[in-house]
Amino acid sequence: MGKTNPGRFFEDYKVGDVIRHAVPRTVAEGERALYHALYPARHALYSSDEFAAACGLEGSPLDDLIAFHVVFGKTVPDVSLNAVANLGYAEGRWIKPVYPGDTLRSESEVIGVKQNSNGKSGVVYVRTRGLNQMDEVVLEYVRWVMVRKGDFDAPAPETVLPDLAKVVSPEDLVIPEGLTFEGYDFDLAGEPHRWGDYEIGEKIDHVDGVTIEEAEHMIATRLWQNTAKVHFDATFREDGQRLIYGGHVISMARALSFNGLANAQMIVALNGGAHANPCFSGDTVKAWSEVLDRAETGVPGVGAIRLRLVATKQGASEFAYKGEDGKYLPEVLLDLDYWALMPI
Amino acid sequence: MGKTNPGRFFEDYKVGDVIRHAVPRTVAEGERALYHALYPARHALYSSDEFAAACGLEGSPLDDLIAFHVVFGKTVPDVSLNAVANLGYAEGRWIKPVYPGDTLRSESEVIGVKQNSNGKSGVVYVRTRGLNQMDEVVLEYVRWVMVRKGDFDAPAPETVLPDLAKVVSPEDLVIPEGLTFEGYDFDLAGEPHRWGDYEIGEKIDHVDGVTIEEAEHMIATRLWQNTAKVHFDATFREDGQRLIYGGHVISMARALSFNGLANAQMIVALNGGAHANPCFSGDTVKAWSEVLDRAETGVPGVGAIRLRLVATKQGASEFAYKGEDGKYLPEVLLDLDYWALMPI
Amino acid sequence: MGKTNPGRFFEDYKVGDVIRHAVPRTVAEGERALYHALYPARHALYSSDEFAAACGLEGSPLDDLIAFHVVFGKTVPDVSLNAVANLGYAEGRWIKPVYPGDTLRSESEVIGVKQNSNGKSGVVYVRTRGLNQMDEVVLEYVRWVMVRKGDFDAPAPETVLPDLAKVVSPEDLVIPEGLTFEGYDFDLAGEPHRWGDYEIGEKIDHVDGVTIEEAEHMIATRLWQNTAKVHFDATFREDGQRLIYGGHVISMARALSFNGLANAQMIVALNGGAHANPCFSGDTVKAWSEVLDRAETGVPGVGAIRLRLVATKQGASEFAYKGEDGKYLPEVLLDLDYWALMPI
Repeated sequence: MGKTNPGRFFEDYKVGDVIRHAVPRTVAEGERALYHALYPARHALYSSDEFAAACGLEGSPLDDLIAFHVVFGKTVPDVSLNAVANLGYAEGRWIKPVYPGDTLRSESEVIGVKQNSNGKSGVVYVRTRGLNQMDEVVLEYVRWVMVRKGDFDAPAPETVLPDLAKVVSPEDLVIPEGLTFEGYDFDLAGEPHRWGDYEIGEKIDHVDGVTIEEAEHMIATRLWQNTAKVHFDATFREDGQRLIYGGHVISMARALSFNGLANAQMIVALNGGAHANPCFSGDTVKAWSEVLDRAETGVPGVGAIRLRLVATKQGASEFAYKGEDGKYLPEVLLDLDYWALMPI
Repeated sequence: MGKTNPGRFFEDYKVGDVIRHAVPRTVAEGERALYHALYPARHALYSSDEFAAACGLEGSPLDDLIAFHVVFGKTVPDVSLNAVANLGYAEGRWIKPVYPGDTLRSESEVIGVKQNSNGKSGVVYVRTRGLNQMDEVVLEYVRWVMVRKGDFDAPAPETVLPDLAKVVSPEDLVIPEGLTFEGYDFDLAGEPHRWGDYEIGEKIDHVDGVTIEEAEHMIATRLWQNTAKVHFDATFREDGQRLIYGGHVISMARALSFNGLANAQMIVALNGGAHANPCFSGDTVKAWSEVLDRAETGVPGVGAIRLRLVATKQGASEFAYKGEDGKYLPEVLLDLDYWALMPI
Repeated sequence: MGKTNPGRFFEDYKVGDVIRHAVPRTVAEGERALYHALYPARHALYSSDEFAAACGLEGSPLDDLIAFHVVFGKTVPDVSLNAVANLGYAEGRWIKPVYPGDTLRSESEVIGVKQNSNGKSGVVYVRTRGLNQMDEVVLEYVRWVMVRKGDFDAPAPETVLPDLAKVVSPEDLVIPEGLTFEGYDFDLAGEPHRWGDYEIGEKIDHVDGVTIEEAEHMIATRLWQNTAKVHFDATFREDGQRLIYGGHVISMARALSFNGLANAQMIVALNGGAHANPCFSGDTVKAWSEVLDRAETGVPGVGAIRLRLVATKQGASEFAYKGEDGKYLPEVLLDLDYWALMPI
């Protein structure tokens, strides 16, 4: 019997199946330090225990995207080892902050399948949940991927398409217990801009750029125990390039967005996202944001801001996005739609 | 008086001498996170405190090879600064798990010397012990190296060759106190294969590959406070290449072996090893294993499996190993022989 | 209103202003591990909790230069974003060790301004203090930088030049409470040389070299939340090179100085320093030291040694320093003047 993991093929996914992913992971100060060394992350709530305590938390949680990457990484061997493309995200919600010492694991429920007309692949929808050592859900999101069939003769399953929200509704956002922005120190946070200072439609160029290195994206991707060959093995693609994990670009862009959005402290929802073009070592990543919406949260002083975060590479013009044909311009790497919490 | 360390030469080693190596090192969550960022390490016992506790340990120990590299690194300034070659390992045993917060130091006893017939160098055998802050031995192994003479006129010492076991006997394996694989969660561990599922002579191709980067091997090697110039200084070798610390290849190969050996959780003995060919930045490392033996351990449910772990680089054919002349093929980097513990 | 930080220009600094810098940072075992992975740091007091406890401390503090870089990094967005040059340091003192779990923030007081005769820039002097979560000063130093004017028509301010000590006087050195070198273990520390073994004027070549990698200097610089574009964005300079943060060279040289100065354990003062020439990826950094002075500290057994630490790159001759014209030779990267504590 073969001992290594061949991954799942399209015909192996049945709607209703729940996959318990290996390997649980205890995350601590080391992961935090590495995150801050790999990305120019500066949001104060995730940098200082004192600042977080002043915001009503027990201490500084691990960055929201650490939780996301760890939970996501565990799904790779079961969900995307034979994936042709990562197609989209929806209904992502951060439910509970993750603190140093927590142990995370992931489970995914298959919520949709649709075979492609070519009969050689299909689209699989999964709802993934990240759980901590108390079996509390810390994070959930829907992802859909195109997966190859292993056996082209396997019959096409009945098509099931999940009904997914275009945007997480503000009333579904989970505000961490105890969170308060009374006494929020704007000096220490780095910028004076409040929730009310941002207008819908406003665009912010985050100015700074970071040139991507092979060692850095591999260190990051391994840290999340993401095992996809294409990120690590220069002999895997014909062009000899290692494809950079899309999450590396997400974290880079989010960290760069500090410059102009220093007070958009906590990510609470992922409405959608597209990895518009591949990123490779040597690319210089920059980012811009657009304010898509604002909402109250029910917690006094805590506002929600909905942002489009776009990452671009060298050669992009200001606020580069889509062409007249509605397709992403070739210099656009990422288009992410998320909700964050800010002091009102 | 010169203040810098010239290292020891062959004539400076006397059988029976015990060298207390500098510098003690406290290892913690940071070293763990870096290890998991530098290698695709996923064995569950070293990833999750919860998983380790379910296996009867007080929490997740630091990876066995962290302990090995730290203990080894301390010996470099005293043992291998003037070494021409690292010739072999034997009788390696992991005695006690290392936990975050432990402080490690190393001592080596000279157990053998043999001058080469050219009169310019000789072979030195040392038995190295790693000790924690309670002066408990956590690890021990024998290593032999070829060392230059500083003074060619120094008289040849009496030859002493230690009597070394070809293989650590199963009854000499130390099973960590309290270890149990009852209630072992194969889903979370990542693979269903038990000790009994592996046959002697079975070979496993671990599939995945990692291309080596200068920044990564230097970060790793410094983390173990290994100071050998050849790993860091591109002006040291005439070809301008930095030689990669052999331990970097060991850890890379061991981590890659997760795919097919996810349940070979703990390394308990190092029977032998050879760094067959040098490794340089840009090489893509892959690995395969051969099951050499299986043994019971006396602890119910805990089996020992003896494995040959071979690391290769690009260009290697499947299960590449030795040629007809008995010499390692040029694409073979590492040949390691070790015992690990698995659920029966 | 623009949301991103344009930085301050020369005319924005007024003598007496105190700037509270963003973003506070909790530093812990992760930062320590990364520091030891990025630099060949081996001073025993910062490597082993046991060794530090034997020296009368509560445990191993974070490396002195971690404290320096974190405190410095916070000042960049307010002090040097529009700086043309980093001109000098003076009156640096380490006041209190920083331990894992401490949260650091920075404040700078403007203590001098002098407009340049060209009317387009000026020199700003700031005294920066690093504070912990108890608002205790852990570190302070003076730095002066040349900053562009934003508005060339802004009137020149009255020139104020601070009166700065050329050298921190030995009686102003702060010896950490409880520090003792009685029972100091020279074996574990790595070298036998005591304070009394070093002669004024003695020079030590630290032998080892490290070739600099892009990934490493960026990881380090981000870890200190230093945001200066020039270190990260390969498209920023016309030559496509990323300038390496001067602090990276400081830490590399200090770590290399272990070989010959293993017992110069704690840095307690920074008398001055110059980044003599820029450093780029691919440069191989070596270091040498000169003993400038020795002083007693008032604490029995604890001596102070004043050292010049010079970092050079490939092509430098032994003890390369200044030419006959008094200017730094082109292979000299750093000239640092500091006080350290040693066992007498």
